[in-house]
Amino acid sequence: MELVVTYQISITRLFFKKENTMYTIYGYDTFNVLKIVATAEELGIDYEYVVVDLSKRENHEDEHKGRHPMGKVPALDHDGNYVFESATICRYLSNTNGNKLYSDDALQAAHINQMMDTMSNHLGRWMGAYFWQEVVNKKYFDKGPDAAVIEEAKGWLDKQFPLIESALGKATYLCGEELSIADIFAYCYFTIHEDTSISLDDYPSIQRWYKLISDRPAIQKAKEVIAV
Amino acid sequence: MELVVTYQISITRLFFKKENTMYTIYGYDTFNVLKIVATAEELGIDYEYVVVDLSKRENHEDEHKGRHPMGKVPALDHDGNYVFESATICRYLSNTNGNKLYSDDALQAAHINQMMDTMSNHLGRWMGAYFWQEVVNKKYFDKGPDAAVIEEAKGWLDKQFPLIESALGKATYLCGEELSIADIFAYCYFTIHEDTSISLDDYPSIQRWYKLISDRPAIQKAKEVIAV
Repeated sequence: MELVVTYQISITRLFFKKENTMYTIYGYDTFNVLKIVATAEELGIDYEYVVVDLSKRENHEDEHKGRHPMGKVPALDHDGNYVFESATICRYLSNTNGNKLYSDDALQAAHINQMMDTMSNHLGRWMGAYFWQEVVNKKYFDKGPDAAVIEEAKGWLDKQFPLIESALGKATYLCGEELSIADIFAYCYFTIHEDTSISLDDYPSIQRWYKLISDRPAIQKAKEVIAV
Repeated sequence: MELVVTYQISITRLFFKKENTMYTIYGYDTFNVLKIVATAEELGIDYEYVVVDLSKRENHEDEHKGRHPMGKVPALDHDGNYVFESATICRYLSNTNGNKLYSDDALQAAHINQMMDTMSNHLGRWMGAYFWQEVVNKKYFDKGPDAAVIEEAKGWLDKQFPLIESALGKATYLCGEELSIADIFAYCYFTIHEDTSISLDDYPSIQRWYKLISDRPAIQKAKEVIAV
């Protein structure tokens, strides 16, 4: 009986892999979308990229809200199943591709997860504040940055950048000697420094790592894909 | 040769499981710490709880920064390995206990992950703003809430609560008919409404679910543990 069950599972997996696995990434030219497209490129998976034009508010149309109830990008469609939130999608793409760039080991997976959480909840949040104040405010609302918000964000980043600097002084990548989804995830937040007044001058290890990730062919390809 | 290697691994695992698995949770009486202690209680694992007194700034002492480089709580010590960030710890506790309250299925794991990310990045963030303005400001800084911050937080929550209401109108728990770490994680953010002016009056399904989780013996035990 057990053998029969195992056999059925194998056939299903084979069919699923050969005929059905189709990823569609819905996005726009933002650092959150870059996380997903860059992860897909690094994993070497086939995907279709569909632009949801935020400048035309296409993300608030019912069709897109069927993909993401909050009307945000990125959103992933995998064989008719929708997945959203960028950290979730990065993990899911890895999980459905042999856990590449992630880990089957609980402790190493935790190191990767905590770096991603640290970026979302702390450094990425404050770099995002710069992006909102210095890029979005200018481009979409025709107004300048709120100095108090920038000051608060800088205060936090001045405390938090040294932690990343320290990690990258000890290892090639954020979670050791192997590239992981944490590097791609974090890198995409760090791209914000190119468009804002955030300075990495005091952080040589972060700069070394930033160039290392920037130079990866998958990252360059991903930037081309979302720049359409 | 392969057999010998397998044998060695088995012996290590046996030893590790019987003699060495020790969890210590470092925390204080906050909703982020409750996430971890409640998860540990729901998983039925043995753990030691150690108070890090935030009111005495013990979290900023070097000893604690060895556990968590940003000097925050919660932090987990598992056999000498430190793990931080509450979502990461919830996943890790589950991963090291047979993936209970989580899922081995990639899509269901993604549903759980995206609910946790949605809480951290959106609803939890805005409920946290209420907590900071109405509880922390009063208790630690002897000042009242910033009306503009509360107004912004309310504006977002008025849009985001209906999404959770809708999910809980369709299923018993946030990710279906089984309790998951997403329920515990989200519930702990929702406890903020008890101490602030956040109202759930318009959301009967959220109220139904909130009572369901509140009444769980593991949740009640966890609240007792961190209230010391």
